[in-house]
Formats: sequence, structure tokens, C-alpha cells
Amino acid sequence: MESNAGATRSLSQLDELLGVGTNRLESFSDGVLAVAITLLVLDIHVPDTDRLGHELLHGWTHYAAYVVSFVTIGIIWVNHHAMIGRLREADRTILMLNLLLLLTIGLIPFATALFAAYLNRGTGDHLAAGVYGGVFLAMAISFVALNRHILIRKPNLLNVPLGLEARRLILRRSVTGVLPYLLATGLAAVSPYITLGITGALAAYYAAPVASGTGI
Amino acid sequence: MESNAGATRSLSQLDELLGVGTNRLESFSDGVLAVAITLLVLDIHVPDTDRLGHELLHGWTHYAAYVVSFVTIGIIWVNHHAMIGRLREADRTILMLNLLLLLTIGLIPFATALFAAYLNRGTGDHLAAGVYGGVFLAMAISFVALNRHILIRKPNLLNVPLGLEARRLILRRSVTGVLPYLLATGLAAVSPYITLGITGALAAYYAAPVASGTGI
Amino acid sequence: MESNAGATRSLSQLDELLGVGTNRLESFSDGVLAVAITLLVLDIHVPDTDRLGHELLHGWTHYAAYVVSFVTIGIIWVNHHAMIGRLREADRTILMLNLLLLLTIGLIPFATALFAAYLNRGTGDHLAAGVYGGVFLAMAISFVALNRHILIRKPNLLNVPLGLEARRLILRRSVTGVLPYLLATGLAAVSPYITLGITGALAAYYAAPVASGTGI
Amino acid sequence: MESNAGATRSLSQLDELLGVGTNRLESFSDGVLAVAITLLVLDIHVPDTDRLGHELLHGWTHYAAYVVSFVTIGIIWVNHHAMIGRLREADRTILMLNLLLLLTIGLIPFATALFAAYLNRGTGDHLAAGVYGGVFLAMAISFVALNRHILIRKPNLLNVPLGLEARRLILRRSVTGVLPYLLATGLAAVSPYITLGITGALAAYYAAPVASGTGI
Repeated sequence: MESNAGATRSLSQLDELLGVGTNRLESFSDGVLAVAITLLVLDIHVPDTDRLGHELLHGWTHYAAYVVSFVTIGIIWVNHHAMIGRLREADRTILMLNLLLLLTIGLIPFATALFAAYLNRGTGDHLAAGVYGGVFLAMAISFVALNRHILIRKPNLLNVPLGLEARRLILRRSVTGVLPYLLATGLAAVSPYITLGITGALAAYYAAPVASGTGI
Repeated sequence: MESNAGATRSLSQLDELLGVGTNRLESFSDGVLAVAITLLVLDIHVPDTDRLGHELLHGWTHYAAYVVSFVTIGIIWVNHHAMIGRLREADRTILMLNLLLLLTIGLIPFATALFAAYLNRGTGDHLAAGVYGGVFLAMAISFVALNRHILIRKPNLLNVPLGLEARRLILRRSVTGVLPYLLATGLAAVSPYITLGITGALAAYYAAPVASGTGI
Repeated sequence: MESNAGATRSLSQLDELLGVGTNRLESFSDGVLAVAITLLVLDIHVPDTDRLGHELLHGWTHYAAYVVSFVTIGIIWVNHHAMIGRLREADRTILMLNLLLLLTIGLIPFATALFAAYLNRGTGDHLAAGVYGGVFLAMAISFVALNRHILIRKPNLLNVPLGLEARRLILRRSVTGVLPYLLATGLAAVSPYITLGITGALAAYYAAPVASGTGI
Repeated sequence: MESNAGATRSLSQLDELLGVGTNRLESFSDGVLAVAITLLVLDIHVPDTDRLGHELLHGWTHYAAYVVSFVTIGIIWVNHHAMIGRLREADRTILMLNLLLLLTIGLIPFATALFAAYLNRGTGDHLAAGVYGGVFLAMAISFVALNRHILIRKPNLLNVPLGLEARRLILRRSVTGVLPYLLATGLAAVSPYITLGITGALAAYYAAPVASGTGI
């Protein structure tokens, strides 16, 4: 590709001017999170039955998975908000790591439906629970990767200058959030109800006032 | 977890600086409301029949439920707008109570589909109507809980200082909005058409100009 | 309900301060329009067949209806943008007429799927075309009702003062846009292809550069 | 239509004042992109089987297509962001070409589901791959058409004045992005796996840090 020095210079200057603000990054991420969280309900099917009460009770796994996944996505949103709120502008790596995070979040409606469908079924329940925990685990790891890039590699993009200690502390909190999902995924081999218990307890913990100020 | 005083101090200062603005809270909530209101249409299925006219007429319960749920979500949006518009910034409890409110709103497409499918069916119609009213009831209660937290416990987060009397009056209006849904849920035991009538009348009442200035 | 004069006065002042800005009205409407326009694709099903080419060709009614409905919703968006862009703030009637408009737009994915499914079927094709035209007609009428309220009854809410003549001219354009949909609906009784032709021609006309500056 | 000179003058002045800003163009486009990217997951179905492990492995085509389409839409978003970010305001042609671009993006969930369903099936796989490549091709061409209109025909609408050379260079990058999709579509006749390979390699290339600063 032929290169024109003048044109190239103008382009670099333009790239600088375009230094991606975080507004549209937030609005696109909010859109994906809002759609994903609302699609969760599509997994709760209207039964075609003459014993509606029985069928609705039987569907408890779907309501439980709905609540756990809804609250978890909601908490991701709160923490995503805090993470991006620290940014003055984004570089391309941030956009791409954020896209990876959104990709894992996009899988949550599927993983939730799979988990709910197999939780009280004789076969496939361990595997389905492993997939459920695994998608949350991938989400938590992507979150850490993005947070790490921002805090450790690109502190110059932060809104407010933060000392290395403070940045490491924030990151450590993110990393700590990975561990329970690792447990939830691994212990699916023992019982899918352990996976439900851990992910549910996490959702309840972060939603409760006691966790105020604690990132994932 | 070891604690570094300097880092912790910086973090508290940061938390203050990050005091969550209401812009992204509004945009995320708007997203969930917009998706939920538009997903309602997925419940109106295209019939595969040679008697289309007959089938479309037979599906009137779906159109009625569509209109009632659409207008109800629309009114929640208007009132949510007013409630959050009074806020200068949000604390974590507000984010979490808002998430609870969104969780109940996310269930409306399911409850609507269930209600429409069972309304003119011999069995399960009372239960389906109870679920429909119950989801609206849970939504109204979550709304009151959020409004109460803002008006009574955190008046310092308001945009404009409001006297205790004024705040109590706004809250009382919210609480009043719970009662009809309590009736709609309870009277489903008598007839599902009462549930349809009450929820429909409420939607019409709030949408009509006469209710101007009245919150849920 | 007991009334406290002081509280009531504060509330009226508050209501004034809260005079609904158009930002969140636009963002909620954009959300509904964006979801509705993207849900259209859910009507194009993946066939399960060993003669894929034949089946894909056979599905042309779905692609045609997809394009017509997509462009029509896109044009509604452009005109909605212009209509709300003239507003400084919204009153409750504007919110409710806007909600009615969104309600008709929310039905477009269903009407599109119905029309596409019955267009080249022996029975029900006239009725399905009538429903398709009728939903567009209802949408156009809601648009006029909202525009009329803004331009004729509440010119004081406009951004920029506009003379009565100018306001009447804008409104007349909106009203003119209703006529083709009236035709498309009525002539469905003659042939569903006339409905497709009129709605398709309208979409092409408004999308073409020649229509620049023309509202629906 | 009778014309009143005074009214018409006011209208032209109004049109100027309304010169469409890019905020709502971005928010509507972000909405469509966010919904389309999140709808991709609806194609990954929960199997009803007693051999879940086997079925999940068998569904690898759906995960592969999910990842490729998700990343591709994400990259469109990044490039769309850059393209619209250069604009100060939009004319009607920009709105319509943007709508055409969104129309092709809206088809991606369908094309993805079709491709995944037929990729490892004996018949229809070449055609399905051709449709998949073809939808991406149509998307890339629409992107170039919009970029060309902005850069070559309406440089006066740009935020920052750019020399002709710089504008041509940006456009040339867009055009270059069309070629791989042309290949991916044409070579579907040879093997659908070539289509998967090319589209997957493109997604990986643009997502990788090495492509920083490179538009589609």
C-alpha cells in the first residue's frame, strides 16, 4: 500500500483527536448487558398442561437460575460501571478485552437455560452445572484481564491518578472474585446443587449491603 | 487480606469521587424496560391454520394482555423516570433495589404469556391470573422499597431538598399504587377476568390525562 | 387522602423542576425502535431440509417483508427524531401518545411474520395483508396524533418558536403520510401483493434522496 | 400542495437548526448492534438428550459461528464508532446509508444460525456458507458506501478538516476490508470450512493488537 507522508501525518493527528471516549463504550456495553439480562426470561416457558400448578412448581430450577443469573449480570453491571468510570479514554486493547467480556456475558442466557433444564434430570446435570459455572468463570477472568490492563498497563488512561498500591488493591479484589467461580465449576463434578449454592450465595453476598464498596 | 493504610485511604477517596451518577443507572434501566416491553410481542404467535380469521379472533386474550402489559411497563417507565430524576447520585443500595425492580419487570413477558395462554382455558386460569397479578404486585412493592429508601433514608442524595411532608406524600402515592395489584392478585381466585379488569383499568387510568402528576 | 398545603406547594414546585426533558424520552424510544427492528430477523427461520436452495428461494416473502418493515421502522425513527428534536420538554400527554406510538411499533414484528407466512398461501392472505397494512396505519395515525398535540396544542413546548402556518404545514405532511397506509390496508381485500407493493414503494420513496426533508 | 412563502422560510430555517446531530444516530446504531450481537446466543439451543456431552460437542459449529459473528459485529461497532466520530452532523443520505448498513447487520443472527446448522451436514453446506459470507460482504459494502459518502461527497460535515489524501487513505482501508469477504463468499463453493477459516482469521486479525489503528 503506497504511503503518503502528509496524509499519514494527518491521520495520526486524527487518531489522537479520536482517542476513544468512554461514553459510547458504556452505552454499547449497557445495551448488551440490558439485552442479555432481559433475554433470561425467554428460558421460562409457558407450559401446555392441564396441571399448571404442578408444572409451575416443577419449573423451580428455571426460577432459581433466573434469579441467580439476573443478579449476577446486575452485579457485573455495577462493577463494570465502576471499572469504566475510572477511565478517561479507551485504547483498542480495552475495546477488545471489553468485547471478550461481553462475549462471555452473551453466553449466560444459554448457560442458564442449559443449567435449569438439566439440574433435576438424571443425566447431564453435572456437565450442565459445569458449563454454567464455567461461563461465569470465563466472565470473571475476562473482567480481571480488562481490569489488569487498565490498572497495571495503562494507568495513564485513568481519570484520577491512583498510586500503585491502590491500583493493586482494586485488582486483587477482582482476582478474589474469580475463586468462587472456580470452585463452583470444579465442584459441579460432585453435585450440581453445589454449583447452584455457590453462585447463588455469591449473588446474595454482593447484593447485600455488607458488600458495599467491594468489587467482584 | 492484608490492608495498606495509604492504599485504603486513596481507595476511599476514589469511592467518593466515583459516587455513582444516575446517567448510567437510567440508561441501563431504560435498556431493560425497552427490551422487556418489546419482547412482549414474541408472545403473539403466527398461527398455522386455514382458518386465520377464526384463529386471530380466538387470540384476543393475547392482544388484551399485550396492551395491558405494554401500557403498564410504559407507566413504570414514566414513574421510574420521575423517581430517578429526583436523585443527584446513587448509593449501592439504590443500585441493588433498582436491580430487584428490574428483575420483577423482566418477568412480565413470561407472566403475560402465561396469563394470555390460560385466560380462556378451563383449567389453570385462576393460577395464571394470580401469577400475572403477583408479578405486578412484586414490581409495585419493589418500586415502593426503592422509593422509600431514597425519600426516607437517603434524602441527602436528592437533587432538590424536599421537606419530610413532601417526601412522605410522594411515598404515600407509591404505596397507594400497591393496593390495586394486591386486589388483582387476590381476586384471581374468584375470576381471572377480575384480574384482567383491574390491571386494565389501572393502565387506562394512569394513561388518561386525569392522572397527570400522579405517581404509581 | 389528607393534604398538607406546604407539602403540596413543594410538590408542585418539584413537578415544575422535573418538567420532563426529552433525553430519556428519546433514549427509551430509541431502545424500543432498535429492539423492534432487530427482532424482525427472528421471523426468518433456518429451514431443516435437504433442499436448502429451494427452501431459501421459497422464503422470499420473508426477505421482502423483512426489508419493507426494516426500512419503514428506520424511517419512523428518522421522523420521530425530527419530531422530538423540535421539543424543549415533554408533558404527560406527550409521554402517553408516544407510548401509544411505541405500542403500534412493537406489533410490527408480529404483523411482518404473519404477512410473510400467508402472502403466498391460498387462504388467509388477504386478512394477513390487512393486518400488516393496519398496523402501519395505526402507527401512522398515532404519529399524527402525537405531532398534532405538540404542534397545535402545545407549541409552547417547542425548542424554537414556529408560526402557525409552519406548524400546520409540518402537520399536513404527517397527515399525508397516513393515506398510503389507508390504501394499503383497504386494497388488501383485492390482493395482498398490492399491500406489499404500496408499503414497499413507500419505504423506497422515503429512503430515496428525492424525499429529503419530507416527514411521514 | 399550496405553499406559503413565510411558512416555508421558517421551515428551511428549522431544518437548518435541526441539522441532525450524531448523538441519536450513534445511540440508535448502538442499540441495533447491541441487540443483534446478543441475539446470536438464541441460536445455541439447549438439547433435549440423555447424551448431553456428545450433543454439546456435536454443536461446536454453533460455538465457532457464535464467536466469529460476535467478534465481527464487535469490530463493526469499533469501526462504526470511528466513522461516525469523524462527523459533526448527518444529512439524510447518511441516515439512510446507515440504515442500510444496520439492515445487513440485522441479518447476521439468521446467517449465523443457518451457517452453523448446515456446516457439518451433507447437503446445503456450500450454500449456507455462501449466505454467511454474502451477508458479511453486503455489510462491508454498505460500510464502504457510507464511508465514501462521508469522506468524498460530504467532507464539509466532518468534525475536523481532513485533506483529500487523508480521506482517500481512510476510504482505501475500508475498501480493502471488502476483499476477504468477497473471497469468503466465492470460496464457499469450494468448501464451507474455507469460509469459516477466512471470516475467523479476519475476526482474530482485527481483534489482535497488531491491527491497532486499522479500520475495516
